[in-house]
Amino acid sequence: MQIGMIGLGRMGLNMSKRLKQAGHEVFVFDRNTERTQTLCKDGCRGAPTAKELVDMMKPPRVIWLMLPAGEVTDAKLKLLFPLLSKGDIIIDGGNSYYKEDRVREELFRQRGIIYMDAGVSGGVWGLKNGYSVMVGGSTEAFSQIEPVLKSLAPAGGYMYCGGPGAGHYVKMVHNAIEYGMMEAYAEGFELLKTSDYGGDIDMSKVASTWNNGSVVKSWLLELLVNVFNNKEELEKIQGYVEDSGEARWAVSEAVEKGVAADVITASLYKRFGSRQEDAYSNRILAALRREFGGHSVARNGEDAKKGTPGAGEAKHSRADK
Amino acid sequence: MQIGMIGLGRMGLNMSKRLKQAGHEVFVFDRNTERTQTLCKDGCRGAPTAKELVDMMKPPRVIWLMLPAGEVTDAKLKLLFPLLSKGDIIIDGGNSYYKEDRVREELFRQRGIIYMDAGVSGGVWGLKNGYSVMVGGSTEAFSQIEPVLKSLAPAGGYMYCGGPGAGHYVKMVHNAIEYGMMEAYAEGFELLKTSDYGGDIDMSKVASTWNNGSVVKSWLLELLVNVFNNKEELEKIQGYVEDSGEARWAVSEAVEKGVAADVITASLYKRFGSRQEDAYSNRILAALRREFGGHSVARNGEDAKKGTPGAGEAKHSRADK
Repeated sequence: MQIGMIGLGRMGLNMSKRLKQAGHEVFVFDRNTERTQTLCKDGCRGAPTAKELVDMMKPPRVIWLMLPAGEVTDAKLKLLFPLLSKGDIIIDGGNSYYKEDRVREELFRQRGIIYMDAGVSGGVWGLKNGYSVMVGGSTEAFSQIEPVLKSLAPAGGYMYCGGPGAGHYVKMVHNAIEYGMMEAYAEGFELLKTSDYGGDIDMSKVASTWNNGSVVKSWLLELLVNVFNNKEELEKIQGYVEDSGEARWAVSEAVEKGVAADVITASLYKRFGSRQEDAYSNRILAALRREFGGHSVARNGEDAKKGTPGAGEAKHSRADK
Repeated sequence: MQIGMIGLGRMGLNMSKRLKQAGHEVFVFDRNTERTQTLCKDGCRGAPTAKELVDMMKPPRVIWLMLPAGEVTDAKLKLLFPLLSKGDIIIDGGNSYYKEDRVREELFRQRGIIYMDAGVSGGVWGLKNGYSVMVGGSTEAFSQIEPVLKSLAPAGGYMYCGGPGAGHYVKMVHNAIEYGMMEAYAEGFELLKTSDYGGDIDMSKVASTWNNGSVVKSWLLELLVNVFNNKEELEKIQGYVEDSGEARWAVSEAVEKGVAADVITASLYKRFGSRQEDAYSNRILAALRREFGGHSVARNGEDAKKGTPGAGEAKHSRADK
C-alpha cells in the first residue's frame, strides 16, 4: 500500500527501508534533503516538502510521522492539519505524551481526519529484526494500517492497545521498564567490579554466560556483551545519562494513580544524579554533617578522632569513577 | 565421567537427568528415597546414604551438592568432610554466601580436598534449555570438572569466575539483578492496569508484543506471557513475595563497598513490604498524620474539610489489591 513517512532520523529512515523492502510504495520527506535522497536510491519516492508529499499520495492517505516528540512533532501536525483530506490517516510514531494524543485526535476528528498514536521500539536493530509497535486509536483505522504494521514488526510484534493515546501509553510504560532493567544490570555489574574479585572477573564473559540459560537473559544483556567487548570505548564514556521524557511521564502517572513505582522512580532519579557534577543537596548534606560533626568534636574528642564508617571507602569509590 | 549428585530437589533432579542424558555415570542420593528411585529408572546409580555414594565412586571423586544453602548444606559438608579422600572435588551448587565458601575452601584444602562453588541458574527450564553455571575455585579443578559443566550448560553457558567464592558472588549479583528486573516489569504492568486504558489492555498481548522486537524483551517477559495467559490463576495468587537471601547479601555488599544500588535495594524492600499485612511504620505514619492533621483542624477548619490529595485514590488502589 501507499505510505508516507515524514522524519527520516535513525528510526524513520530504517522504517522506510523496511517498508520499501516489504513492497510498499513509500513516500518520504525530511527537511534534511540528503536523507530523502538516500531513500530515493532505495526506491522510495522523495518529496521536497511535506505539502508535496501529501499532494503526491492518493487519498485516503496514510502518513506516518517519525519526529522528536514536542515542538517538532506539534509544528508538523499543525502544518499538515489543513493539507489533509477527510478519511486520511495521520500516525504519530514518536514518543509523544498520551494526553496530547487525546487532544489531537479530537481536533483531527473534527475535520474527518483519523489521528492515531504508535509507540515504536527496536532502535537501530529494527531494520533487521523488525520493530515492536503499539498502536492507539480507532479499531477500524487499525485494520486499515495493518499491512504497514505487519511489515514493520516481526511476527507477533504489533498490537492494538486501545483508544487514542493507548499506544503511546504502553510505549511510555515500556520505556520506564527499560530504565529499571538497565539500572538493575548497571548496579549488578558495578557490584561485580567493586567486589574482591573485580579485577579478575571477565564482564563480557559474565554477560554472555548469563545469556545462555540464566533467568536474567535478555536483549539488553546481549547489547552489554558488545559494551564490555569494547573495553577501551567504555573507559572513555562519561557516566552522564540522559533521559528522553517517557520515564518522567510514567512517574507522574504513578503519582497520579497512587502506584508505588519505587524501582522505575529510582532508576530515573539515578539518571538525574548522574548529570549533577556537584549536587546542591550533596553540598548541603556535607555541610550539615560537618556542622553537627563539629558539635560532636567539641563535646566528645574520641568520636571525632575515630572518623565515620565508610569515609575512606567512599573516597575510593569516587576516585574509581 | 563419574559425577555424584547429592540433593535431588527441583534443581538437582533435573541436573542429574541432564548429566545422565549427556552420557556421564551419575551417582545420586537424596534423603527422600523416592527421588533417588526416580533417577535410578533413568539409569543413574542410587545410593541409600551419602556415605555409600562416596564408597560407590572411584577416587578422585567429583561430588556436586545441590541443597538449600545454610544449615542443610553445612550439615552435609560436615558429614562428607571425613569421608572424602585427598584429590576429591566437592562442589557446592546451592546459593551459599560467598564468604562462607572462602572458609570452607580453606578447611577442605587442609585435608587435600578441593572445594569449589558454583552458582546455577535456569530453574525448572534448565533440563531442556541447559543451565547457566558460574564457578569459583582453582583453575585446575575447573578444568577437571569441565566435562560436567559442558553437559549442564548450553553452548557458552558456563564460566570460571575467579577464586573461592567467585562463582557464588556472581550468582548472588545475578539474582539481585533478577529482583530489579522483575520489579521493573511488575511496576510497569501495574501502571498499565491502573491506567485509563487498564480495562482494555490485553496484558498477555503486551508481553508477547514486547518480546517481538522491543528493547525490553527477555526470558522473564516470556514467562510473563504464561502468567497473563493464566488469568484465573493470577487472580488467586496473593501478592506475598518471598526472597531467598541473595539480594540481601547483595545489598549488604553494596553497603560494604559504598555502591549506590538503589534499584536492587528498592526491589528487595518492596518484597519485604509485600509480606507486611499491617506494617508498624505505616501505622506510625497514619497515626502521626492524624496527630498533626488534628492540630491543623483545630487551627484551620477549611484545610481539614478539604482532606488531602490522593486520599480517595489511595483507598481505591488498596481495594484493588
